[in-house]
Amino acid sequence: MAMWRAPSAAGQLLGRALASTAAQTSAGSKKVVGVFYKGGEYADKNPNFVGCVDSALGIRGWLESKGHRYIVTDDKEGINCELEKHIEDAHVLITTPFHPAYITAERIKKGKNLELLLTAGVGSDHIDLPAAAAAGLTVAEITGSNTVSVAEDQLMRILLLLRNFLPGHHQIVNGEWNVAGIAHRAYDLEGKTVGTVGAGRIGRLLLQRLKPFNCNLMYHDRVKIDPELQKEIGAKYEEDLDAMLPKCDVVVINMPLTEKTRGMFNKERIAKMKKGVIIVNNARGAIMDTQAVADACASGHVAGYGGDVWFPQPAPKDHPWRYMPNHAMTPHCSGTTIDGQLRYAAGVKDMLDRYFKGEDFPAQNYIVKAGQLASQYQ
Amino acid sequence: MAMWRAPSAAGQLLGRALASTAAQTSAGSKKVVGVFYKGGEYADKNPNFVGCVDSALGIRGWLESKGHRYIVTDDKEGINCELEKHIEDAHVLITTPFHPAYITAERIKKGKNLELLLTAGVGSDHIDLPAAAAAGLTVAEITGSNTVSVAEDQLMRILLLLRNFLPGHHQIVNGEWNVAGIAHRAYDLEGKTVGTVGAGRIGRLLLQRLKPFNCNLMYHDRVKIDPELQKEIGAKYEEDLDAMLPKCDVVVINMPLTEKTRGMFNKERIAKMKKGVIIVNNARGAIMDTQAVADACASGHVAGYGGDVWFPQPAPKDHPWRYMPNHAMTPHCSGTTIDGQLRYAAGVKDMLDRYFKGEDFPAQNYIVKAGQLASQYQ
Repeated sequence: MAMWRAPSAAGQLLGRALASTAAQTSAGSKKVVGVFYKGGEYADKNPNFVGCVDSALGIRGWLESKGHRYIVTDDKEGINCELEKHIEDAHVLITTPFHPAYITAERIKKGKNLELLLTAGVGSDHIDLPAAAAAGLTVAEITGSNTVSVAEDQLMRILLLLRNFLPGHHQIVNGEWNVAGIAHRAYDLEGKTVGTVGAGRIGRLLLQRLKPFNCNLMYHDRVKIDPELQKEIGAKYEEDLDAMLPKCDVVVINMPLTEKTRGMFNKERIAKMKKGVIIVNNARGAIMDTQAVADACASGHVAGYGGDVWFPQPAPKDHPWRYMPNHAMTPHCSGTTIDGQLRYAAGVKDMLDRYFKGEDFPAQNYIVKAGQLASQYQ
Repeated sequence: MAMWRAPSAAGQLLGRALASTAAQTSAGSKKVVGVFYKGGEYADKNPNFVGCVDSALGIRGWLESKGHRYIVTDDKEGINCELEKHIEDAHVLITTPFHPAYITAERIKKGKNLELLLTAGVGSDHIDLPAAAAAGLTVAEITGSNTVSVAEDQLMRILLLLRNFLPGHHQIVNGEWNVAGIAHRAYDLEGKTVGTVGAGRIGRLLLQRLKPFNCNLMYHDRVKIDPELQKEIGAKYEEDLDAMLPKCDVVVINMPLTEKTRGMFNKERIAKMKKGVIIVNNARGAIMDTQAVADACASGHVAGYGGDVWFPQPAPKDHPWRYMPNHAMTPHCSGTTIDGQLRYAAGVKDMLDRYFKGEDFPAQNYIVKAGQLASQYQ
């Protein structure tokens, strides 16, 4: 029998009582609140576009047929937003990394009935995980639901930055034609040294996809990847990050955002990289020092920076990464392809079903369970 | 002993005599004319940027030290251009696919001393090959010099079209943030059916790089790829092109431009493709019916068209592919990365050296030899 609101390790429950037996066994009607990005004019363009607030993961009929209430919104900022209003009596909160509802300790305190926080996607750093643990909440994500989507996107951004695609494309749109403007700084990926900082699920998928490109592959992580995969991929393990960075033509960030990784790529660390390095970061924006990245792009020390993650999200109009030279930035989208959406929507439904039945989740999906944070967030 | 100006198969020499013994053995000073794209403001930005007219493949010192004359220009259009002026007494003409000097029968006739036409890169369709053969010229290219460069670029364009990268990037540049505008038509490559029309050197390199993406791979060609590579890649051979096309989510064009492939992808053939297909063509623009592609992008039948090849090149400002929706076009650049330039510059130098010494070229480099066209152009 799963326990949805467990006592924290420290036994602190922010002054609130343990959830009732009804909550633990999940009997009765629940209030489920989902925060997604707005579909707007695009909502009806694709029947599989389930990730937007309009389609709400395609689970409304199923939830309501079971007697549960389902509130969805994209209004997530400030104390008067829809999220703040509904968090007060919500049992379950579904959020995503793409349009992150920042679930602070204050919001957790406000959510007196909260039992379960589900991340539709991968990466739960938008939740104050220690506060969630202290409050005895369960936090879980749809592990693996969009890891392939992100790894593909990383390889795309490596290629388009190395090969200097965007200036060429802009020439075409602007009625120009100047091959030299592209070719003087366009390179093949073949033969380059590519290092991933972090070789978890996404990092490994990236390394597998890089294999036939005949690169010199490296990775830094807390632990080595298993010997069989290591043999297949042939990537070199670098225990010392600062020893790996100066060797890399391309650096890919593949770590979760934690208190240890926040701001980890600051001015000093970027300076250790090779002049002309390409950086791809689809992990989390706050792993980088925002201004240090912009300055290094402006100076040319970094020849290209690409990714889809920012802090905060949506990125404000004056975010320096919108204006720096040689960027390949987009809104946070790499994990929310139609394929990814269908997978994480199915994963959310499965986990809600287990929750209603009082069953455990797949072990790898837990981010906070019984007051304990998953190892990658410790 | 290589024969640089051989009698054609038909014995026709456009009314001119066979080249002298001196030409055949390549004794004496030669006039070498190169036509490249202009470096302009970019010429001095990278010491390895050898592909532009300013650096002229980095072989000037070597050529002049051997007593040869070396004229380079980017002026290739019309009867008063530099090329027309110098073709009259040139022995060797070096051209590229990126800034193609269209070597017509008239120009071949004008080049009374012409012996050797070298393509710095791959693809010699800008030369009237039957006329060159009839005139007894040798045509050769730097086979393999940029096949990896092009295959990488194709995979990049597949990814960025499928994943709907460009609209997201433009949002960032324009101060916007709308995840739905990207996500409603963004897909993973995984699980999709990708077919290459042509599985020569570039097509095979693409298939190898696609292998870890877990796609359903297919290819159409005149001949099957060798069993070992077939086993490694796992791509299905489709003898009937029109049977393959309706199965493909992504179609990649990987054929040379010949009289058989010119305009091959017309309205009728594009209509056979799946609605929502992605087409990538880094082969040659004239393989497509220009307006049929633009119309199919406008109707949405083709969800994305990407490539770097046009007819003519440079593409005029009013070329419809500049304006059609969902394109990922650039000027012709995929084969002229810095790595590609260094390889084809080295290849040109090697072939000139062999020519001066009267030695044969590597067999795979010949496009026209002794009046015969290479098999891919027949």
